[in-house]
Amino acid sequence: MAPVAVDTTQQQPLSVNDIAPKKLQYLPNRAFVLRETKCFVYEERPVPDLPSNKHVIVAIKATGLCGSDIHYWQHGEIGQFKVSQPLVLGHESAGVVWQCGPAVKSLQPGDMVALEPGIPCRSCSYCKEGRYNLCPDVKFAATPPHDGTLTTYYTVPEDFCYKLPSSISLEEGALLEPLSVAVHCAKLAGISYGNSVLVLGAGPIGLLCCSVARAFGAAEVVAVDIVPSRLDFARQYAATKVYRMEGLLPEENASSILSGTRKSEGFDVVIDATGAQSCISTGIHALRRGGKFVQAGLGASEITFPVAQLCSKEGVYIGSFRYSAGDYDTAVKLIEQGSVVVKDMITHSYSFDEAEKAFQNVVQRQGIKTIIRGVGV
Amino acid sequence: MAPVAVDTTQQQPLSVNDIAPKKLQYLPNRAFVLRETKCFVYEERPVPDLPSNKHVIVAIKATGLCGSDIHYWQHGEIGQFKVSQPLVLGHESAGVVWQCGPAVKSLQPGDMVALEPGIPCRSCSYCKEGRYNLCPDVKFAATPPHDGTLTTYYTVPEDFCYKLPSSISLEEGALLEPLSVAVHCAKLAGISYGNSVLVLGAGPIGLLCCSVARAFGAAEVVAVDIVPSRLDFARQYAATKVYRMEGLLPEENASSILSGTRKSEGFDVVIDATGAQSCISTGIHALRRGGKFVQAGLGASEITFPVAQLCSKEGVYIGSFRYSAGDYDTAVKLIEQGSVVVKDMITHSYSFDEAEKAFQNVVQRQGIKTIIRGVGV
Amino acid sequence: MAPVAVDTTQQQPLSVNDIAPKKLQYLPNRAFVLRETKCFVYEERPVPDLPSNKHVIVAIKATGLCGSDIHYWQHGEIGQFKVSQPLVLGHESAGVVWQCGPAVKSLQPGDMVALEPGIPCRSCSYCKEGRYNLCPDVKFAATPPHDGTLTTYYTVPEDFCYKLPSSISLEEGALLEPLSVAVHCAKLAGISYGNSVLVLGAGPIGLLCCSVARAFGAAEVVAVDIVPSRLDFARQYAATKVYRMEGLLPEENASSILSGTRKSEGFDVVIDATGAQSCISTGIHALRRGGKFVQAGLGASEITFPVAQLCSKEGVYIGSFRYSAGDYDTAVKLIEQGSVVVKDMITHSYSFDEAEKAFQNVVQRQGIKTIIRGVGV
Amino acid sequence: MAPVAVDTTQQQPLSVNDIAPKKLQYLPNRAFVLRETKCFVYEERPVPDLPSNKHVIVAIKATGLCGSDIHYWQHGEIGQFKVSQPLVLGHESAGVVWQCGPAVKSLQPGDMVALEPGIPCRSCSYCKEGRYNLCPDVKFAATPPHDGTLTTYYTVPEDFCYKLPSSISLEEGALLEPLSVAVHCAKLAGISYGNSVLVLGAGPIGLLCCSVARAFGAAEVVAVDIVPSRLDFARQYAATKVYRMEGLLPEENASSILSGTRKSEGFDVVIDATGAQSCISTGIHALRRGGKFVQAGLGASEITFPVAQLCSKEGVYIGSFRYSAGDYDTAVKLIEQGSVVVKDMITHSYSFDEAEKAFQNVVQRQGIKTIIRGVGV
Repeated sequence: MAPVAVDTTQQQPLSVNDIAPKKLQYLPNRAFVLRETKCFVYEERPVPDLPSNKHVIVAIKATGLCGSDIHYWQHGEIGQFKVSQPLVLGHESAGVVWQCGPAVKSLQPGDMVALEPGIPCRSCSYCKEGRYNLCPDVKFAATPPHDGTLTTYYTVPEDFCYKLPSSISLEEGALLEPLSVAVHCAKLAGISYGNSVLVLGAGPIGLLCCSVARAFGAAEVVAVDIVPSRLDFARQYAATKVYRMEGLLPEENASSILSGTRKSEGFDVVIDATGAQSCISTGIHALRRGGKFVQAGLGASEITFPVAQLCSKEGVYIGSFRYSAGDYDTAVKLIEQGSVVVKDMITHSYSFDEAEKAFQNVVQRQGIKTIIRGVGV
Repeated sequence: MAPVAVDTTQQQPLSVNDIAPKKLQYLPNRAFVLRETKCFVYEERPVPDLPSNKHVIVAIKATGLCGSDIHYWQHGEIGQFKVSQPLVLGHESAGVVWQCGPAVKSLQPGDMVALEPGIPCRSCSYCKEGRYNLCPDVKFAATPPHDGTLTTYYTVPEDFCYKLPSSISLEEGALLEPLSVAVHCAKLAGISYGNSVLVLGAGPIGLLCCSVARAFGAAEVVAVDIVPSRLDFARQYAATKVYRMEGLLPEENASSILSGTRKSEGFDVVIDATGAQSCISTGIHALRRGGKFVQAGLGASEITFPVAQLCSKEGVYIGSFRYSAGDYDTAVKLIEQGSVVVKDMITHSYSFDEAEKAFQNVVQRQGIKTIIRGVGV
Repeated sequence: MAPVAVDTTQQQPLSVNDIAPKKLQYLPNRAFVLRETKCFVYEERPVPDLPSNKHVIVAIKATGLCGSDIHYWQHGEIGQFKVSQPLVLGHESAGVVWQCGPAVKSLQPGDMVALEPGIPCRSCSYCKEGRYNLCPDVKFAATPPHDGTLTTYYTVPEDFCYKLPSSISLEEGALLEPLSVAVHCAKLAGISYGNSVLVLGAGPIGLLCCSVARAFGAAEVVAVDIVPSRLDFARQYAATKVYRMEGLLPEENASSILSGTRKSEGFDVVIDATGAQSCISTGIHALRRGGKFVQAGLGASEITFPVAQLCSKEGVYIGSFRYSAGDYDTAVKLIEQGSVVVKDMITHSYSFDEAEKAFQNVVQRQGIKTIIRGVGV
Repeated sequence: MAPVAVDTTQQQPLSVNDIAPKKLQYLPNRAFVLRETKCFVYEERPVPDLPSNKHVIVAIKATGLCGSDIHYWQHGEIGQFKVSQPLVLGHESAGVVWQCGPAVKSLQPGDMVALEPGIPCRSCSYCKEGRYNLCPDVKFAATPPHDGTLTTYYTVPEDFCYKLPSSISLEEGALLEPLSVAVHCAKLAGISYGNSVLVLGAGPIGLLCCSVARAFGAAEVVAVDIVPSRLDFARQYAATKVYRMEGLLPEENASSILSGTRKSEGFDVVIDATGAQSCISTGIHALRRGGKFVQAGLGASEITFPVAQLCSKEGVYIGSFRYSAGDYDTAVKLIEQGSVVVKDMITHSYSFDEAEKAFQNVVQRQGIKTIIRGVGV
């Protein structure tokens, strides 16, 4: 385990047994609401109705915090999405099925499930062609104007619930969301057995990308960051090698990274989980001819980009957006098979009543991943 | 035919019949040599030997001029490649087989052939995996230190000669090289039936990309340029629509381009043949979700790039480098089947003795494509 | 036009103008019902309700007959599907939108549309991954227990209606269904520019495969059948060459077919639209190394298969099942762009009152394609 | 370790250290020659010359026996290949570099290498497009008329030698050949993380396919055979489950196999390493919709094939032929990373002088894999 601060509120993983005695007990439907920028309030709301007979109501038990949650809280907007009315945040969640619509077949009350937070329209060309993450009409939790999951009860279609095997706790279930982001990147990059992979950024997404790359068969995974403690964690977690980014030219950093690897000709795959121009440029210089670069993280809307490098290598620079068909399924298998260990990444856990403290904790960049437990746990 | 200036030296296409009486007659091996930047001289050199028993000697009869030829002439270098010793330029060539090595089976003296100018090592991983354009040891004509084809005789391995059917003239054969560049872009983009395609830049490569896109089944091909006469040519040549680039924001130009198309959601494929930042940025904004952008042309080594656009669309930005296995074969079929008409693009033709005039003509951006005829024709 | 018998009931193509005066006039909802094997009856049924607010009711105006319709009529079953209760046949249909659910946005009463007859569940893994034709819960028109389209009114979700441009008649719209079958085969085979394609069987599906192959850029398309009149039609319709199957060994037929083509090494793509063992075996022998063979038609459930041929060529033998995402869209474009001409294939047309005559006509293998017009036209 | 008979001649793995003192010592060039069917003789031949300056001469130290070696010995032919003149068998070999051509850069005398036994022409379209296993002019060791590797010295181009890291013994190096066959199958099938895979046949190729499938991320690998001891070995080696084939209908065997797996809907991938009709048919029935079936082994040239099953599932049936670009590289990584353990499969080892005993041992189906050591070890 890496030298990260561990919150004293940290508890044992939530299993359905832990919460069994009261797992189907009615609780008031409380919501943790961003009323306006930098201002959270708690509200009690009616328990939601089932929108269709194929929906279920889930009692949320664990929600991970993501950079976008923090950004909405502090700035009230991300790109084109603006918080113009009170909004419930949270979209990395797992919980217990509380009620099922009459046509639901695969779930029953009491089942532990993770939720996929974006519900596409199912009828546009993107949905039909297997890329529902590109659906222009997707309703994504905690993206204005759609409320998120930091609430007692949340409704979701049966097929966007993923039943957790008994070996996966609810907190781990909450981490299926960022893990699916990493899975999506690895699939876009086509990582296969024996590949060499460079991952820029050792935050939660970068770390998960390292671990998924290993699970997909990568022989060499190099993690890059500027924070030594993150690199220490990465080395113990999933990277075969780490590199601390220096204030050098991109080609110099690339050359230093490559000097210690087996393939001096460059990486088969590069994944950037920073969005930082210096990292992206370094990554393009460290890519092998014909290699693939997946852009997982976002910073500025525009960057200076080494286009001549990309062309002379015939490289492919791929934008990644959330996750799509099959990614959650793969993520469940990764945890279930022990190929990716997400519980080591959960360094902080707060009760629902302390939700704002959880947000503050993330701002202070404490630990790796912070969880807010559901109402009543 | 578009309103481009037609040189008075323009002749009928060179067929083997035209040159039949003397096609296998010995000629002195003259070379048109770039002695140093901006300084050409003619030299007489020994006829080359056959480097192996699978090589042929070709009597060059037509050579197209390319931007890289001009750039070496004027600047003495392109990126990492510097002209440090006298260099013969020219790499878009066709000619008549003059002598065959003893193991050559598919060719005989007198055959008309086009030459593929880059000879890879055939044994590295790139060569073996079908991407020989990425071979680090490729020997490419007119790229220092390898001499080009502006000479009477040139040697090439049998399998990098493409026998021209009788319906294809030697000048058209010379244009197989830029056509193969366009074919490679279209294949990288995966253009298929019914696609909408945006091509930025209406010079030779852009025009050929338009035409190849149509041949590959594109239902809509929009050409963009800033020069009205080029757009007039593009419209009559292969584009279904043209757009004159305005001094607007990229998103504004993109919006204007899309407003007149059937698919307001963006183009399935964008090909940039300019290398200009404003064009690339406009193209990314005009791409549909999940679309592919191929970078065919090069300008600056770095550009400002709208990375957030690429990610939110999950777009793919692909560098293209020359051409690879099968591209010349496809190019031959395109001309032979009448799917692409290259002869309309040949607006100027000069004799070998007037080679420098041909270079000057290209600098003055006269017409579309300029050909230098071989020694003796 | 090929020398096929043309029925005297043949009329001008149905355009919405022809039927405009009465296109939104109420008609009794008549159904042409297969009560039991070989026994059709007409019934009057209530006009169906809208199953959801995203459904439309279409007044069917033209329905093509397919081999499966005939088979159910004569044998009461196909494989696992048995007609155990009265069934309305017909699934190749186009018509006029009569009523729209309140959430329908892209259609309005009076629009001419073609119907895609299989409605998948939209939530299983096949649906989400872009292969809804493999959905185990698809509801397919005229496949027991789901009624087909030989009725006055039929309901369908908005997004399984394809609005016909004014250049496409309703009869042509009905042929989008078999055309989509051919499109699906061509996409599975990955037909691209310059390919050589062999199509076994010159019935409606085989002919459409020939034509789609040409539209996708195939340079050579050879059609094979045993009926000379079909081969005559194929030659004039879309094939570059035809071959009459002989009573020879498969390798002998393959050799004869290849002897007249440009690529003696075998076809890039083979599509079988017969299901006949002799054809499939011939096709495998005529495939080039690394080529793709798509099985479009079905006969016996088991065949003798030349597995050693497939392995030594590293060939790929692909089963094709109906059509999936994007295929109808491509089919609409093919007709609209003039790339495939389906109206030449419609050789017979019957009124709704003469529906059984239409079935008899198909049994007698008269002409190419037989249409039953809707009630009131 | 499974209960297979272990020959008493079994020795420690051959490392370069073991043979170091004499590794570059000259030995007479002895060949083990199949003079005619069922008749081996030893001959002494001249040490071969270097065919080009990029070739090396390798002193063969270990050669695995393959079914094809046995078949040539017993029947004098396989399909179109007939032994019409004396032939040296053996093609699964590793050894020590004895002499290098002057242009060889990556190797030097004394290096331990495995040999890829098929040398393609490097200039046909298959070679250039990355599928050199389909080269019609490949020269494959021990395939008439090309001699194999059961000789003291063997010449091979530098780039078809794979330098063994110190962790891989020479016997393991010899097994890179069958391992590359399995790698090629797994790549053709596109096995990826989480897949369920069925492997029919638990001989050397089937076992290696199981192990490669696991290394490529398969979550479930079921091995099928009729010999219990092979299934015991498979279970301990790489399979997550085994099934003993019963004399049932294919659909019944398929149903039994699937009943114990997590995905009752069928396997993502099936690989047949038997060539037996009953196995192939069972495999098609056990495939999931849209799944891929790779045919790795060969028996009869024709089989009865359940085509209706393949079509209704839209399955893909892929012929596999040897191995191609990158497969040996992957195989080296698999052993080096410990992902596949080949040494457990080597159950018998014979000296060069006892070569015929090794052939007899394989005929008697003793153990899993039999090795013949080189001259002098």
